[in-house]
Amino acid sequence: MANEADVFDVIVIGAGPVGENVAKRAVRGGLTAAVVEERLAGGECAYYACIPSKALLRPMGLAAEVSRVPGLELRGPIDAPAVLARRDETVSHLDDGGQVSWIENVPATFVRGRGRLAGPLRVEVTAPDGGVRPLRARHAVVIATGSDPWIPDTPGLREARPWTNREATSVQQVPKRLAVIGGGAVACEMSQALHSLGAQETIMFVRGDRLLARTEPFAGELVAKSFRDSGIDVRFGRSCVRVERPVPGGPVTVHTDDGSVIEADEILVGTGRRAAVGDIGLDTIGLPAVGPIEVDASMRATGVSDGWLYAVGDVNGRNLLTHMGKYQGRICGDVIAARAQGRPDNLRATRDIADDRGAPQVVFTDPQVCAVGRTEARARADGFAVRAVEYDIGAVSGAYLQAEGYTGRAKLVVDEDRRVLLGVTFVGPAVVDLLHSATVAVIGEVTLDRLWHAVPSFPTVSEIWLHLLEEYGL
Amino acid sequence: MANEADVFDVIVIGAGPVGENVAKRAVRGGLTAAVVEERLAGGECAYYACIPSKALLRPMGLAAEVSRVPGLELRGPIDAPAVLARRDETVSHLDDGGQVSWIENVPATFVRGRGRLAGPLRVEVTAPDGGVRPLRARHAVVIATGSDPWIPDTPGLREARPWTNREATSVQQVPKRLAVIGGGAVACEMSQALHSLGAQETIMFVRGDRLLARTEPFAGELVAKSFRDSGIDVRFGRSCVRVERPVPGGPVTVHTDDGSVIEADEILVGTGRRAAVGDIGLDTIGLPAVGPIEVDASMRATGVSDGWLYAVGDVNGRNLLTHMGKYQGRICGDVIAARAQGRPDNLRATRDIADDRGAPQVVFTDPQVCAVGRTEARARADGFAVRAVEYDIGAVSGAYLQAEGYTGRAKLVVDEDRRVLLGVTFVGPAVVDLLHSATVAVIGEVTLDRLWHAVPSFPTVSEIWLHLLEEYGL
Repeated sequence: MANEADVFDVIVIGAGPVGENVAKRAVRGGLTAAVVEERLAGGECAYYACIPSKALLRPMGLAAEVSRVPGLELRGPIDAPAVLARRDETVSHLDDGGQVSWIENVPATFVRGRGRLAGPLRVEVTAPDGGVRPLRARHAVVIATGSDPWIPDTPGLREARPWTNREATSVQQVPKRLAVIGGGAVACEMSQALHSLGAQETIMFVRGDRLLARTEPFAGELVAKSFRDSGIDVRFGRSCVRVERPVPGGPVTVHTDDGSVIEADEILVGTGRRAAVGDIGLDTIGLPAVGPIEVDASMRATGVSDGWLYAVGDVNGRNLLTHMGKYQGRICGDVIAARAQGRPDNLRATRDIADDRGAPQVVFTDPQVCAVGRTEARARADGFAVRAVEYDIGAVSGAYLQAEGYTGRAKLVVDEDRRVLLGVTFVGPAVVDLLHSATVAVIGEVTLDRLWHAVPSFPTVSEIWLHLLEEYGL
Repeated sequence: MANEADVFDVIVIGAGPVGENVAKRAVRGGLTAAVVEERLAGGECAYYACIPSKALLRPMGLAAEVSRVPGLELRGPIDAPAVLARRDETVSHLDDGGQVSWIENVPATFVRGRGRLAGPLRVEVTAPDGGVRPLRARHAVVIATGSDPWIPDTPGLREARPWTNREATSVQQVPKRLAVIGGGAVACEMSQALHSLGAQETIMFVRGDRLLARTEPFAGELVAKSFRDSGIDVRFGRSCVRVERPVPGGPVTVHTDDGSVIEADEILVGTGRRAAVGDIGLDTIGLPAVGPIEVDASMRATGVSDGWLYAVGDVNGRNLLTHMGKYQGRICGDVIAARAQGRPDNLRATRDIADDRGAPQVVFTDPQVCAVGRTEARARADGFAVRAVEYDIGAVSGAYLQAEGYTGRAKLVVDEDRRVLLGVTFVGPAVVDLLHSATVAVIGEVTLDRLWHAVPSFPTVSEIWLHLLEEYGL
């Protein structure tokens, strides 16, 4: 006999930070919510991505800062076991009890198991013990299943069981020789983190001609120079054509398209991610089970009759960034509550304007790469009347006082028609929290003439703003 | 026979960063300019204030950061001689050749000597050799003479030749026992800098009941706690009633109003500054030679017929902050050029809107204190309909990843009528460049509903914005 379905206003599949935000905002709006998670509550971000990667990178970045300040000297290299222990603490030793409590305190119902759509407003959860629990939603089902690392089908690569962000961030024994495939954020961050913790021979194979290809060209150039100066071997225009790992866990051999052969202790793949839609029952409602789930600006899936399905975070493909997913989650929770209660659903807070206009991103390398909005190339491609200006951050007094030999660069991309910013990029040590000034300016559409009166403190790195605006002609 | 006067469109008295900015902007606007300086071109800021103080503070701040990151350890205490050597480099070993070249490259004429008004549009410069050179301005004279430290008339204090910011920032031999009078920015910064460089017994005498009295109360509390934890003896509600220094350069004895007596190797006074108007000839044009020179929003001195006199920077008393002086200097140079050429002088760029609305300030202690705009108390006193929210920065994931035991606090002061920010305060380690996000929001009058879409990156300290806005109710 089939179980009676438990009924909630909203059912969220996926208890990462994105799904958690949906539940929190929906409940705050007066609804009941269930959150379904097969793996750890808290999601990839809390255990295998943002959190541990930053815990592994922080000592590297700070050690680099120390090396540029006379009067301070480190006792020795970074103490890798201490860093790994701290990393373990930041991921709560892979125990999700705190996250489950957080969800229950929302209050929302946490349901452990694999969630799968089973028709309109229906979800079936397969518990770890194999039991199936049917759930029914009164108003909405939200897919927040995130994404999975994508492994290219290079011969032998999958068989070699390469590391992805998951294995790299949960590293217990740092490999001495590390081969890295890819040049994006994960590849860059984990290469530098592992190199700083003992991966003395780190080689990056980058298919294109620069790192961080979606950012302004100087960003990748500055990062590549820093990597090379620190001893990371960055090889551009190189594809991996074959991988061999005859003994599981043993050395891995990488063959590249220029005929060279590299042996390494481990291989890390950072070649992008794919929406996690493989087995969530999209077929039961007539949607294709490939690619991201397309949504409108209220996070509602397009092409689903009666509009009860939503998708937030990586799974909708808008921006594969935790903070943008959380942002979408807030919008989604608010809009579902508004619609459920017949309140206006078209308030400013219930539409996504940031994903297109001003998604910020930080790559926590040394130097850090921080960007928001459009690159110059993207802005031109999108048809804006663009003028861009650049300036060396090292020429700013505040940077000179922060570090001997400070190296960094900044860029503004201006919409000449409206005299507002379309995009801003900062590359340099410790510029991470400078980025939000640009995000506020881009999203707030603050005109250049008004920004001219936003005086940065002297002597800080923030004065780069003044130099950029003077460079523009103010 | 009197010398023929040299004629310039604009004459600037004072070659600090403020006067330099006036000249640069005026010349850029098509005028000729002379800059007169009695002491070092570059001003107090470059040799005895902002620049060297930050050079002395940076190792302290960074060492504190290292102490909170597992996996890094310093070899020993800060190497004071190395820090002093770096400080010497940052002040160009007190050689102003580079600054003079900068002025000449504007191009402007640098005139070394003491500048004094000698009637309308007239300046007399007394050169180091005693010769007097008369100058005449076609359009404007700009006073940019800055300010001098103010020493209270406590019996024996002036005779003891106490340190001010000048002696503290140019320290060659760090005193072991240091007595500090005052609790403002200079007293706090120099106490902590000198303590970190060897002033093991540092005692601060603060008349009021908190440090940094013009900032939000929690700022001074967090700084006082940090000071005490590091061994600085902070005494509130204590006034110094008598000082004795029988042998010049010998120990100094400080008597306080509770009857206690302290002996120290040096005494530092940080009790405020006064506009430097003592001997610049204000009497020759009928202005009083005390107090700041009052100016309008275009930096033109009020009460001077024909409006040829301007005053920028500390000397006008608006905000005794280098960056605000530089800002005023840009406005002043632009407006003088516009008026000289009969162009409109009422453009947005030629009026000071930031001094009242959004002057940012940073105190480079550990924790750093960063604030812009009004405190809650000031906003209420000014009659705004205020709501304020606070949040612990330590509860933000990005802060937790930046440091073990991160301690910090943030506050928004909201104008409820317009739903814009009147003031923002951040206190915590390394929050200095986060401040500009608040400055852009305050000056840009970005509404809270729009700020809600300015997504901070995860996991950064900038996410404090998200928590504050949620706390507000968004």
